[in-house]
Amino acid sequence: MIVMGIDPGIALTGYGILEKKGNNIVVVKQGCIITKTSMKTSERLLFIYKELVKIIKEFQPDRIVIEELFFNKNAKTAILVGQARGVAILAAANLGINVWEYTPLQVKQAVVGYGRAPKNQVQEMVKLLLGLKEIPQPDDVADALAVALCHLNSWPMEKYMTER
Amino acid sequence: MIVMGIDPGIALTGYGILEKKGNNIVVVKQGCIITKTSMKTSERLLFIYKELVKIIKEFQPDRIVIEELFFNKNAKTAILVGQARGVAILAAANLGINVWEYTPLQVKQAVVGYGRAPKNQVQEMVKLLLGLKEIPQPDDVADALAVALCHLNSWPMEKYMTER
Repeated sequence: MIVMGIDPGIALTGYGILEKKGNNIVVVKQGCIITKTSMKTSERLLFIYKELVKIIKEFQPDRIVIEELFFNKNAKTAILVGQARGVAILAAANLGINVWEYTPLQVKQAVVGYGRAPKNQVQEMVKLLLGLKEIPQPDDVADALAVALCHLNSWPMEKYMTER
Repeated sequence: MIVMGIDPGIALTGYGILEKKGNNIVVVKQGCIITKTSMKTSERLLFIYKELVKIIKEFQPDRIVIEELFFNKNAKTAILVGQARGVAILAAANLGINVWEYTPLQVKQAVVGYGRAPKNQVQEMVKLLLGLKEIPQPDDVADALAVALCHLNSWPMEKYMTER
């Protein structure tokens, strides 16, 4: 089972690909897609889409997982993140891969065991659970790994979960 | 000059394609893409994307125009609309077509001549300027035609405008 977590953003889209072999979870690939502010929105979205398609084709994840967004951001930010998110979901859907979503609460619950855990505690657990030497940087990559980890820890329960 | 206006939404995406011949503007095509609530988000976005690509390929617009979103909606709605919007921009960008954006104020200014005009007045002007028998339905189609009209009325000034 190979799972790809994506944390989409117009400037920076983090991703992390995990493989579960027996009880072991290993990082297959992690990284981020960066677009310059000098680019037009359409060019940035196209770049993110093409890069994601390339990565998905290379690593063939069985599932793609995205964190549901925090809704305390303002509507303008939400639209911009939403656009990047739409493109990420499309990249998956266009390659026939199922997309799953988790709320930040579910991610924290699955990774730390406590839904109100602070961000740095989630990152520490990502490092620990994946046997990494350091917390993945930037935050978007750690977040992408966290949501992928959440799916791998949750999927035996998937009949109770919502597919998007 | 053929311009396609799009009013993106996850449930309903309106579009209107206008052609300017001399001083005359004619409707080449108008319609909307509807997705069912029973579909998964990823399926809905993929459907919108594929339909838009089909329409763009058929009518070969020189420009694609999208209205900037109202920011008084809540962040949750904004994310959902943003996702559909990202997919619409991507469809254009992936086919090498420039995307332009206008604020609601600019659309009203260009179509009615008054930036604070009520919605029904904009729709009446769309009907009048395009020589239609009725106001296009649903609203999303009228809005898509309005933003396309705005671009056709504004593009002689385009060096002062922002491309997205």
